Amino acid sequence: MFTTRTTYRTRYSDTDQMGVVYYGNYARFYEIGRTEMIRDMGYSYKELEETGVFMPVAKVEANYKKPLYYDERITIETSLKKMPAARMEFFHTIYNEAGEVAHTAVVTLVFLSSQTNRPVRVPEYMINALSKLSDLE
Amino acid sequence: MFTTRTTYRTRYSDTDQMGVVYYGNYARFYEIGRTEMIRDMGYSYKELEETGVFMPVAKVEANYKKPLYYDERITIETSLKKMPAARMEFFHTIYNEAGEVAHTAVVTLVFLSSQTNRPVRVPEYMINALSKLSDLE
Amino acid sequence: MFTTRTTYRTRYSDTDQMGVVYYGNYARFYEIGRTEMIRDMGYSYKELEETGVFMPVAKVEANYKKPLYYDERITIETSLKKMPAARMEFFHTIYNEAGEVAHTAVVTLVFLSSQTNRPVRVPEYMINALSKLSDLE
Amino acid sequence: MFTTRTTYRTRYSDTDQMGVVYYGNYARFYEIGRTEMIRDMGYSYKELEETGVFMPVAKVEANYKKPLYYDERITIETSLKKMPAARMEFFHTIYNEAGEVAHTAVVTLVFLSSQTNRPVRVPEYMINALSKLSDLE
Repeated sequence: MFTTRTTYRTRYSDTDQMGVVYYGNYARFYEIGRTEMIRDMGYSYKELEETGVFMPVAKVEANYKKPLYYDERITIETSLKKMPAARMEFFHTIYNEAGEVAHTAVVTLVFLSSQTNRPVRVPEYMINALSKLSDLE
Repeated sequence: MFTTRTTYRTRYSDTDQMGVVYYGNYARFYEIGRTEMIRDMGYSYKELEETGVFMPVAKVEANYKKPLYYDERITIETSLKKMPAARMEFFHTIYNEAGEVAHTAVVTLVFLSSQTNRPVRVPEYMINALSKLSDLE
Repeated sequence: MFTTRTTYRTRYSDTDQMGVVYYGNYARFYEIGRTEMIRDMGYSYKELEETGVFMPVAKVEANYKKPLYYDERITIETSLKKMPAARMEFFHTIYNEAGEVAHTAVVTLVFLSSQTNRPVRVPEYMINALSKLSDLE
Repeated sequence: MFTTRTTYRTRYSDTDQMGVVYYGNYARFYEIGRTEMIRDMGYSYKELEETGVFMPVAKVEANYKKPLYYDERITIETSLKKMPAARMEFFHTIYNEAGEVAHTAVVTLVFLSSQTNRPVRVPEYMINALSKLSDLE
């Protein structure tokens, strides 16, 4: 497994009139989680795009377990459970400030060539980085 | 089955630098779909909240099939496949302007009492409305 | 003067935990207003971009007079008071469902060539359309 | 003058298809700036609300000078130039990663009692904190 943890403070803009974080805003939390994980592999997602590879989201499966409130310091934990190939599956667990699991999600991304707009395989540098940094297979 | 259709024009604010609708903005489309469906049942979601019932989202399963572009007139089709009880499952299909299926999602909501913050059963008026308007069981 | 009116229903995603529309979401309302105005001139903003002209926002001056609530049918009134040249000034008045002025804003946009990334003058078709449709000078 | 600086990394969700941060997302940056400033005064905005005081935005004047791009580490500098009374004026300067001024804004907030929904004066603790921390008059 390869895991990255990052923190985020919830903002007023994240809330809705139920007094909790709007369910649609969790997608931004997944984005923060996977972006910081990719940065940990040695390249930013921005650099990845500059090499002509885009990573659109193909699938989201999300479970809302506890509400998140305004001004909470949440922790976004992001894990890979297997080496990416045509797809890359990110497992997210979001902890509230009390350390409880508030949310889990599995987000699947694919790799697209910006030139052909066709699927491509995972970039070599990611495989290399993950081979060094983890025991993923 | 009980189905509602509503249209929405994608805005610049919906897009990201990939030139398509940001994946996190689809949650607003589901919200539009289910709100208009609830309105079709004779009460608005706003009125529902005024009776002390909230409907937080418990689960999202979403499949991104084709990108949506700026200034597209999309159609959000929302269906119920069974009578809600403790939970209410909304099936969404989003069509792009060309009429192709661009996205599907199943979004599960629960009913909460705003007084006790505990789960409650589906409001009676919904059952009555759905009995009249559909053949749901 | 040249004026366009369009309506919008506020959504849960627009609100924050103060129980009103989040102040940052009004920018989307201005966008809706000016986009529909440009469409009324005979070209969509999308088509404008396809001719290589972008319109970034240069300035916003906004006054929040009354809150907007969830599920209100608001009216976005957008006006031009003079013929655009290097800049285009949109005057927005947002009415709540009761017809009261809830918000006013002046939003200034400039015209940029996507090729040179330099300012350009207002496209000729806009001048022609506005000459026909209004008494702007 | 009393000044707070905080940093923020722009996200994909912040961008639009022009390839820059969407103009409507700057409101969140002002919110981050003023929230961190209020925290620097010894109370969080959350605690302020718990004492029954809300701070809705009354006015925004914003100037967009340079675009902000994806994955930039921006600095949000927030200043008070005079002691707040019935209103509180926040002066924001946003620097891009290269340290250039990309944006300035003045955002005016008022104090409202949540009980009466009427304007109230600035909370005493803010005056006390600002008297100690700054030379504001």
